[in-house]
Amino acid sequence: MADKFASERNLKFLLHEVFDVVSLTRYPYYEDHDREMFDMVLDTAMKMGRDMLKPCFKEMDEDPPHLENGVVKVHPMVRTYLRESGDGGWISAYAPYDVEGQQMPTTVRAACGFIFGAANYSLSVYPGLSSGSSHLILSFGSDELKETYVPKMFTGEWQGTMALTEPQAGSSLSDITTQAVPTDQDYYLIKGQKVFISAGDHEGADNTVHLMLAKIKGAPPGVKGISLFVVPKRRPTADGGLEPNDLVCSGVYHKLGYRGCPLTQLSIGENDDCRGWLVGEAHRGLRYMFQMMNEARIDVGMSAAAIASAAYYASLEFARERPQGRKIESKDPTSPPVMIIEHADIKRILMFQRAVIEGALGILLQCGIYADMERVTEGEEKERYTLLLDLLTPIAKSYPSEMGVITVSQGLQILGGSGFTDEYTLEQHYRDQRINPIHEGTTGIQGLDLLGRKLVMKDGRAYQLYLEEVRKTAAEASADEALEPYARRLESALETMDGVTRHLLGIAASGRIELFTSDATLYLEMFGHVTVAWQWLKQGLALRKGLAGQPTENELKFYQGKWMTMQFFFHYELPKIQGLATRLLESDGLTIGMKEEYFED
Amino acid sequence: MADKFASERNLKFLLHEVFDVVSLTRYPYYEDHDREMFDMVLDTAMKMGRDMLKPCFKEMDEDPPHLENGVVKVHPMVRTYLRESGDGGWISAYAPYDVEGQQMPTTVRAACGFIFGAANYSLSVYPGLSSGSSHLILSFGSDELKETYVPKMFTGEWQGTMALTEPQAGSSLSDITTQAVPTDQDYYLIKGQKVFISAGDHEGADNTVHLMLAKIKGAPPGVKGISLFVVPKRRPTADGGLEPNDLVCSGVYHKLGYRGCPLTQLSIGENDDCRGWLVGEAHRGLRYMFQMMNEARIDVGMSAAAIASAAYYASLEFARERPQGRKIESKDPTSPPVMIIEHADIKRILMFQRAVIEGALGILLQCGIYADMERVTEGEEKERYTLLLDLLTPIAKSYPSEMGVITVSQGLQILGGSGFTDEYTLEQHYRDQRINPIHEGTTGIQGLDLLGRKLVMKDGRAYQLYLEEVRKTAAEASADEALEPYARRLESALETMDGVTRHLLGIAASGRIELFTSDATLYLEMFGHVTVAWQWLKQGLALRKGLAGQPTENELKFYQGKWMTMQFFFHYELPKIQGLATRLLESDGLTIGMKEEYFED
Repeated sequence: MADKFASERNLKFLLHEVFDVVSLTRYPYYEDHDREMFDMVLDTAMKMGRDMLKPCFKEMDEDPPHLENGVVKVHPMVRTYLRESGDGGWISAYAPYDVEGQQMPTTVRAACGFIFGAANYSLSVYPGLSSGSSHLILSFGSDELKETYVPKMFTGEWQGTMALTEPQAGSSLSDITTQAVPTDQDYYLIKGQKVFISAGDHEGADNTVHLMLAKIKGAPPGVKGISLFVVPKRRPTADGGLEPNDLVCSGVYHKLGYRGCPLTQLSIGENDDCRGWLVGEAHRGLRYMFQMMNEARIDVGMSAAAIASAAYYASLEFARERPQGRKIESKDPTSPPVMIIEHADIKRILMFQRAVIEGALGILLQCGIYADMERVTEGEEKERYTLLLDLLTPIAKSYPSEMGVITVSQGLQILGGSGFTDEYTLEQHYRDQRINPIHEGTTGIQGLDLLGRKLVMKDGRAYQLYLEEVRKTAAEASADEALEPYARRLESALETMDGVTRHLLGIAASGRIELFTSDATLYLEMFGHVTVAWQWLKQGLALRKGLAGQPTENELKFYQGKWMTMQFFFHYELPKIQGLATRLLESDGLTIGMKEEYFED
Repeated sequence: MADKFASERNLKFLLHEVFDVVSLTRYPYYEDHDREMFDMVLDTAMKMGRDMLKPCFKEMDEDPPHLENGVVKVHPMVRTYLRESGDGGWISAYAPYDVEGQQMPTTVRAACGFIFGAANYSLSVYPGLSSGSSHLILSFGSDELKETYVPKMFTGEWQGTMALTEPQAGSSLSDITTQAVPTDQDYYLIKGQKVFISAGDHEGADNTVHLMLAKIKGAPPGVKGISLFVVPKRRPTADGGLEPNDLVCSGVYHKLGYRGCPLTQLSIGENDDCRGWLVGEAHRGLRYMFQMMNEARIDVGMSAAAIASAAYYASLEFARERPQGRKIESKDPTSPPVMIIEHADIKRILMFQRAVIEGALGILLQCGIYADMERVTEGEEKERYTLLLDLLTPIAKSYPSEMGVITVSQGLQILGGSGFTDEYTLEQHYRDQRINPIHEGTTGIQGLDLLGRKLVMKDGRAYQLYLEEVRKTAAEASADEALEPYARRLESALETMDGVTRHLLGIAASGRIELFTSDATLYLEMFGHVTVAWQWLKQGLALRKGLAGQPTENELKFYQGKWMTMQFFFHYELPKIQGLATRLLESDGLTIGMKEEYFED
């Protein structure tokens, strides 16, 4: 098994040389931090990755969680890691000091999430969920909810979850039927079913705290009738103890990958004794939940980039150590075989993996910067960051997920038949990765979100800000001789995409909404490639600075590898938008016209 | 589990309406067959698929083959199915009457292979291997080898295999080291190791007959020193019995998918008592083996299309039965949800699956026709078919494999979270399919084969013939008003591809061979899209004829579905060549220039 799963050097390049994360410390909220601290945090994450997460990567897959006498058995490391994540301040990292948080920039914490996900995706999910759900309580919950739940979630003793999906509703949250009946106490009685709830119940935590969507009896239909509740598995009693809350795990899915974390079915209030506490105001639950969902979407993107990274290093190690064949120009069969990394096609695959992973990391950390800036700024400036973050979220979720599936598959391909066996980790990465285009909103949902919502919101303001940002980078790069051709490629790609955007908005303006969104997934894909090109050009600017300094020999190799990988993206990946744009400009409604009966034969 | 796995109607459309397979019966070799017979064969295959193969599809995955006291245990159906395939004449289908074969056209047998592979890929492989390996003995073996081995392979009592790969050599067959030492008897003593041998040993057959590559002691280095041997697991004795041949299965791989068929490691001649019988002449083994390998490559493509078909029907069934969400233009939350097949994005995915599967089937059956015509023609005409078949083989192997991985992944996506669980078959199809871009020559190897060998052989004659064939179809379609725009799209794509081809051949002519082949995989991909476009236009011609007849209501739906799927291919898939062509015309040697040390960081 390859030792390496993530590049700390690359993360530092991104954090410091590209995004200058230290500049955040000019704001009072972050003023206690400095570069040394950020680097120490990264080092600690790498150490945890190596020492705690990676060693049980395979074990957790081989012996997945299962229900045994009503208890979801998980790997013993789950408990250890949850507590360690609590003690180390990882779960409370984003939170402010006044609630015992660390006030750590999202950007830095996200980079650590990349490390954890690359070391062992399934294990990394548990504290991540607690972090998001406790943040939700802190943002919108009453003081009592905060005091009752958040501290134990921060220590890792209690597991937080997000409980949205129901069997009959799936992605269509307006159709959820879990019911909340008001009582004359401070709680509601909750009744219903939830499915596909990650870490929804397990013996690695002493309690599970669900952030659950339900409808208060008599609520308006659709999404406007959804409320958010805290629904614990065990409810706190007056004497400081815990008692059962009529919420049981009724099943654990057997699944393709991501096996170390239980995906559970929950049966809620079968005996009419499940209590839930309303978060914020009634009927505004979906709006609240979107805070966690948006964070979770970016986390999914980060995990996808992380799995792709682990797969990349596994395939790189193989490519370096596996002798096979000869260079195509020297076919002398008596000469010794070369390592397969010498073959152009293998290098192409490795560069593809890197181009996607490092480009995706660019988008993801860019989102981190926007989130951090949103937190510390006010008024128009704050709104700017909010809008940019909103716009980028579907890209940050879908690009790494979709492309991550392909990069892992290509990484497996490098190993040939060996990649198909469980003697290497690629087959597990391949299975693990496949969840990412699905959970927290499928790619189809992200496409609709981008095109149908984010692009048109506030009269297209977010999109205009995005164009400004990309053009700014292109303009800056145009002044550098080596980058200038790539700045032009980016500008040209942006023109192409903008042409498509205007075309589609024209259709929307004419009221043909189904036609407008029918190829939203392809639009999302195109937007992803262009956004990554922008991020690569940003990295190009930083690496040119690095090269202009006096890099050591090792640093020089790093920058040269970056430089070639950046070129690779522009030469091999960005041209993919051509075919997409051609299709998107047609808007002939072909799929809309396909009738169900035509699928019969 | 979806009942349907393959469309018999579509196979009949292809065999009769597109390829007019009955016209083969004008040749004496096939004169005993007729349409009724062909249709009966297809019906029988469908029945076997439903009754024998499909029912154990999941069981064979859940309880994969394993070594137990030196025996490779497999599902009991393996033995039953092998014998049934023998008794039904499936293993001997291609072979001539004089050796108890059926003289069945390859095209028809291949269509049945699609059915079997769709019903249960792992199970379908066993008799397929026996068929290919017995064909190899019949083509090049001595009468004694034919008499000793072929009859028992034809009955399904003995399992045939192809044993090429070795641990140190992988795809580089010139580096195999399995040794054959001549004796004063009619056999050689064989010694070595083979890995990744499908069905290389199992209790479902009474013997295993390996068609094995080895080097005779003192042979020239490289591929020119490779010979082909028949190496049985148990060797026939003078008294008509069998005795051990010092060939043992030393391991069975645990693998991602394709789990119903053991992928074995073989240890040969550990006690210096493994006998092998030379097939044909010494040192010509690779040439002989290429006959089986080329057949196997097309079989792999067919299996990939088949798995994609089973996944398609599973996702189609789900899409039809799963209510979720509303049409985008009618967001009233109190209206009942629609089936997800109503959503444009779901229809897009389903059409994508169909466009790939039915297009891939076009290439594969086209190869069948060329193989059949090669058999029954002579001289220049025969050579024409040989060349076309040679050229198309890497496409027929790689397009269905690579695109099949994507279509299955997209099919899984339709099911959302459910697709990730083992409550549906998609996750198994996803695992099974992943072997196809690997075995029988990875996609990278196919790219080198197409560009580095097939395109340049005989001064590019095969490529010229291919262009003629495509242009002929385009010209014919140009005369049809509805098809004319698609004929133009095909011609334009062909021009684009031909431009790239000339550009690359120019580089080859200048001697820069590494540069010439560095993006061979992308060239292969582009060639695949164009070839499928050609096949779709052929199908377009046939469906226009069908529509011009007086189709019944059901037939009308079939043709309309075809028509829209054809359009889909041209509008959504063919434009992918634009980005590929852009890249291929650059030829800047970017990957060649990437040094191994730059991957360090």
